[in-house]
Amino acid sequence: MPSLRQDADEIIQASIRAAMPDSAVRRALQNHTFGPGRLVLTAAGKGGWQMAKAAYELLGDRIQDGVVITKYDHAKGPIGNLRIFEAGHPVPDENSFRATQAAIDLVAGLGPEDTVLFLLSGGGSALFEKPLIPPEELTGLTKQLLACGADIVEMNTVRKRLSAVKGGRYAELCAPARVFSIVLSDIIGDPLDMIASGPAYPDGSTSRQALGIVEKYGLTLSPLAMELLGRETPKALDNVETHITGSVRELCAAAAASAQALGYEPVVLTDCLTCEAREAGSFLASVARYHGGAERSMAFIAGGETVVHLTGDGKGGRNQEVALAAAQGIAGLRGAAVFSVGSDGTDGPTDAAGGYVDSTTQARLAEQGVQIFDVLQRNDAYHALAKVDGLVITGGTGTNVNDVSVALLKR
Amino acid sequence: MPSLRQDADEIIQASIRAAMPDSAVRRALQNHTFGPGRLVLTAAGKGGWQMAKAAYELLGDRIQDGVVITKYDHAKGPIGNLRIFEAGHPVPDENSFRATQAAIDLVAGLGPEDTVLFLLSGGGSALFEKPLIPPEELTGLTKQLLACGADIVEMNTVRKRLSAVKGGRYAELCAPARVFSIVLSDIIGDPLDMIASGPAYPDGSTSRQALGIVEKYGLTLSPLAMELLGRETPKALDNVETHITGSVRELCAAAAASAQALGYEPVVLTDCLTCEAREAGSFLASVARYHGGAERSMAFIAGGETVVHLTGDGKGGRNQEVALAAAQGIAGLRGAAVFSVGSDGTDGPTDAAGGYVDSTTQARLAEQGVQIFDVLQRNDAYHALAKVDGLVITGGTGTNVNDVSVALLKR
Repeated sequence: MPSLRQDADEIIQASIRAAMPDSAVRRALQNHTFGPGRLVLTAAGKGGWQMAKAAYELLGDRIQDGVVITKYDHAKGPIGNLRIFEAGHPVPDENSFRATQAAIDLVAGLGPEDTVLFLLSGGGSALFEKPLIPPEELTGLTKQLLACGADIVEMNTVRKRLSAVKGGRYAELCAPARVFSIVLSDIIGDPLDMIASGPAYPDGSTSRQALGIVEKYGLTLSPLAMELLGRETPKALDNVETHITGSVRELCAAAAASAQALGYEPVVLTDCLTCEAREAGSFLASVARYHGGAERSMAFIAGGETVVHLTGDGKGGRNQEVALAAAQGIAGLRGAAVFSVGSDGTDGPTDAAGGYVDSTTQARLAEQGVQIFDVLQRNDAYHALAKVDGLVITGGTGTNVNDVSVALLKR
Repeated sequence: MPSLRQDADEIIQASIRAAMPDSAVRRALQNHTFGPGRLVLTAAGKGGWQMAKAAYELLGDRIQDGVVITKYDHAKGPIGNLRIFEAGHPVPDENSFRATQAAIDLVAGLGPEDTVLFLLSGGGSALFEKPLIPPEELTGLTKQLLACGADIVEMNTVRKRLSAVKGGRYAELCAPARVFSIVLSDIIGDPLDMIASGPAYPDGSTSRQALGIVEKYGLTLSPLAMELLGRETPKALDNVETHITGSVRELCAAAAASAQALGYEPVVLTDCLTCEAREAGSFLASVARYHGGAERSMAFIAGGETVVHLTGDGKGGRNQEVALAAAQGIAGLRGAAVFSVGSDGTDGPTDAAGGYVDSTTQARLAEQGVQIFDVLQRNDAYHALAKVDGLVITGGTGTNVNDVSVALLKR
């Protein structure tokens, strides 16, 4: 019988596989037929190269032209006739603007029979950008927003109004051509107007909100920028069809399917976890403990993206904290394990994707003089997990659709 | 159709009713027959009067003598021939010692045919106490332990060794009589050696641990006390039969049964929640949100006792924080509500048992200029909930078996 750890590793691999950009694009393009006109491709985001590659493998020369924009070191070679750009992230740079201009030129003059295959993934806010204000001012504004602690919703609400492509404007530029948009979601709840600032999605935010954010943080903007904030973005787009794929929901579904194949009864608790990492671990462990007397194997699955409030200067990541905190709750619980991984394969500033603990972890750490509470206070989960073979190492995966945490009870 | 709030109130009432000392005692005594000898009763704890009353109503004159020890203002009148004492809590006082001496005298000279009906509830650690050191020293030590932040496990491990009745010693005093012990559990996981310091349960803690706690906190003890810490407590008791009743598990089961009767599919997630209150609320809300598309009404139930780490000086309690934090997560979610209540009816230093929120709560607070994040930072949930009819008021209930939090989805 495979060990709990082997089961965990299999579930982790299956989940990440399902959330990879190429699998996601293949699923979205399955059974889709494009119109008779021209077909061009625009891909933007950290997963842009993989998404474009998968599309090209399926559609080949059917794609007449294309522009791929991804982060530095994220392009892995030529893809047919597509033009590949690398650019700045998280702060857009000249290459972002140059590449985005190429994507704008690409769709100029298309007709109603034509289609733009638009592949979008996380990081697109910086990578897919053509500012309507001097680039230095936009760079400065992005830095102001990051520095004052604006959240991503606020950042996007402001920036999309200063952009030629965001807030649905790229889809406007494509018209009258059709846009077939495939979105790899990296934001909990898949808010399509937020992912990469929604270049092909009607904008849910308003000019009034944007101006409110400027006031709230006391941002410094030029008169041109202030005027642009007052211009509304499109609230409806009738030339766009959107497929969300490879989201955390699919990550959880794949974890559930894999767990079921291994003999566990899967229970997806949520796919939109946003609470403190260590508390999520505690909650998940308490779910496992309550069901500890169950006679069948069970897998409780929670997807999302937890947060860590730093109280120390150790090494770790949110998934490692979820797992380590859970180790207290499942200590001594027969056949129990908890693991948590980031789908991108890098959890915090570490080489681990996440952590794995079982009913013996707390005792094994205690034997080595390590108290979990103290480790969490120092945010040093990495070193503690390393002592008990508790690190999950996958390497960079090439996708980023948040995290999945699982509690296993094996009978 | 009853409103979500009406459903919530009904579930709250049904849960607390099932966890009341009298219901719990009736369930435990159902179908139990006592031996042919004498039957005496000892009841100790905050629920002592109710438990004794329920037992007396069932057994009447079959109880030949008895001692009831409860907190000041917790006795509600005479009960047959039982002697009723009120005493100090959380710090034991002279009345605790005097009452406990009466309970010791009560069981002196009983034979193997005789039975002690021993009714125990939360608060028994202070109320059921006969120190082996001068009372002033014990009082001082209890204050030292509270002041240095020792947890309840640590407090009990030390104090039970300085007591004539704790750590299984009362059951030793009852021998050779049988002890039929009914325990209303107020500690997550029902650790019988911890509840009221386990007067009738073998002691799982050791002298070595007790001495370790003295060292950890640098406690000041007399030579007599130090000698007593070195004496072991009973590790086995063959004259005791124990029934746990009215625990948080039954609180959750009653919530589930009540929800089901109202048309919800109940899902008990856990009965041993111990994480931070606001994070538990966030987690529970994310479970509701994930299932928001369900076509049937559902009730997700989590029992336990969350904690609050104070960051402000507002007014509130852990259950109010669970609910208020959840209001963010269920904002705008159709037919959703979250409530959380303490079974004792008093949540923190407030007159509320807990809080209730629904999909409109966040927006209604925002309209009044109240941001939930800020409220939680100030630990001021009480005043925020009061603005949106979000307080749950039950009055003191007379039981204390932790808390229950519920997310409802009504279709």
